[in-house]
Amino acid sequence: MYDAAKLEAERRAVEKAIDRWLPGPDDYPEKIHEAIRYSVTGGGKRLRPIMALAATRALGLDEQSIIRCACAIEYVHCCSLVLDDLPSMDDARLRRGRATTHRVFGVATAILAADALLMHAFRLVADNGVTVGADGEAMAAAVRDLATAVGSYGMVGGQHVDLETASGGPIDAETLEYIQTRKTGSLFAVAATIGGTLLGAPPPSLDTLRGYAMKLGFGYQIADDILDAVGDERVVGKDVGKDQGKASFVTLHGVDAARKAASELLSAADRSLDELEGDVSLLRAIVAHCLDRGE
Amino acid sequence: MYDAAKLEAERRAVEKAIDRWLPGPDDYPEKIHEAIRYSVTGGGKRLRPIMALAATRALGLDEQSIIRCACAIEYVHCCSLVLDDLPSMDDARLRRGRATTHRVFGVATAILAADALLMHAFRLVADNGVTVGADGEAMAAAVRDLATAVGSYGMVGGQHVDLETASGGPIDAETLEYIQTRKTGSLFAVAATIGGTLLGAPPPSLDTLRGYAMKLGFGYQIADDILDAVGDERVVGKDVGKDQGKASFVTLHGVDAARKAASELLSAADRSLDELEGDVSLLRAIVAHCLDRGE
Repeated sequence: MYDAAKLEAERRAVEKAIDRWLPGPDDYPEKIHEAIRYSVTGGGKRLRPIMALAATRALGLDEQSIIRCACAIEYVHCCSLVLDDLPSMDDARLRRGRATTHRVFGVATAILAADALLMHAFRLVADNGVTVGADGEAMAAAVRDLATAVGSYGMVGGQHVDLETASGGPIDAETLEYIQTRKTGSLFAVAATIGGTLLGAPPPSLDTLRGYAMKLGFGYQIADDILDAVGDERVVGKDVGKDQGKASFVTLHGVDAARKAASELLSAADRSLDELEGDVSLLRAIVAHCLDRGE
Repeated sequence: MYDAAKLEAERRAVEKAIDRWLPGPDDYPEKIHEAIRYSVTGGGKRLRPIMALAATRALGLDEQSIIRCACAIEYVHCCSLVLDDLPSMDDARLRRGRATTHRVFGVATAILAADALLMHAFRLVADNGVTVGADGEAMAAAVRDLATAVGSYGMVGGQHVDLETASGGPIDAETLEYIQTRKTGSLFAVAATIGGTLLGAPPPSLDTLRGYAMKLGFGYQIADDILDAVGDERVVGKDVGKDQGKASFVTLHGVDAARKAASELLSAADRSLDELEGDVSLLRAIVAHCLDRGE
């Protein structure tokens, strides 16, 4: 078994930072900031910010120096969840066991809060770049990587194709891989590299981390499909079966093949870490967590 | 009369750049990129990118070196229009004389295209920072300024309060000013300063430009309220009267007082340009255009 306690300790530490770096709940307009806070603080595994810290540690760099970037990645993730849940998208009732943001605050406020959260994330990345003394190139790379991961060649593209194919019957494996890598892998890849990018880590190490994160992201998404197909709402904390008409690795290949693919991807992610010289134990714990999840 | 031909020549030049710096229309997923292009290329006065170029010129700097930033500001503006028009927000049928993006592409695609456009803008600002050799601080300031102008303390905040007060009867002048300055002034201010920020202009000159843009933005918004109250749909190119139940300077103070306030703000914006030593003629032409509009 992997060190679940280790991940849990990291999660608790990162949870505090996630709260700390949000805009104040009493800032005007209060309702937007309340909606932002609701969207972010509803729990979650916080894998992405933990990955950002773990990857920076694996490069032998000071992970606490990029804590704002780690939080920014989680805020971007929460932004994407709020948008995915909208009535015009997945029309979800529940997220992390609670009512979705638009059901509590209304659709307009949910959209505005999601975009405000996204903007807050970019501000934090910029601020963090200044505190670590990043030069213009490093700062630009961090901003560009994050914007690309979210935009039409990243998460937005993945979500769009996901919605387009949702009601269209069977899709091919290539399209499915596009959706999965864009919806999860893109942001995982930025999580794993943004610290090193701002701190000037060597490009080959960043490539290794990017490869790790892409494999992990795809494996993680397949594990998620498995959970959605076989889990129950109480455990998963969101609408189970909601995605059942939608393209997934499970609907395309079946549960057994999905388990095998997830396992292979996650093992490959784990092996890729051999190329790094720093402390990769936390990155391996994340792999183990994902492996455990898809079983 | 102001030099309308001068502004029109600038608009045509900037129109080409706006087209040039968009993502390719054939990029996958095509429909998102089609929706992005539709949202951006429907015409418009292009005041914000022209202002970005004009302000950079007024600082004695090479305006063409920051053309991508100028386009980015327009993309952000178009993103905000797509979101404002959504059924859950202003529920607008027409924008610039054409069907609104969500009516052509559906609500989900409109939201995704808007966010993709926003991300594209940040990527362009980062890229442009690299091409002009901006250092880390300048790059961070440009990104932070843009993110702040869009986020919960800027346009998102303004739109939220605007929606909240839309159906709530009379509002006070302070709340109205909050809405107006956030919805228009915030982005005007970034437009007027982003070039100088990336190119390392002296802070006092940037403060002057910021003040100019905030006054202009407020005056412009009041002129817009006047047009909305007295214009007709053919001229305005969007749903006239749609905003009539909403708070506006006109509903609060009447048309005459609105005309006076717009005129005073725009004159103050014009006077503030005396502090700059570069070529401010184009910035003055923008003021004159706004003055003309509100009459």
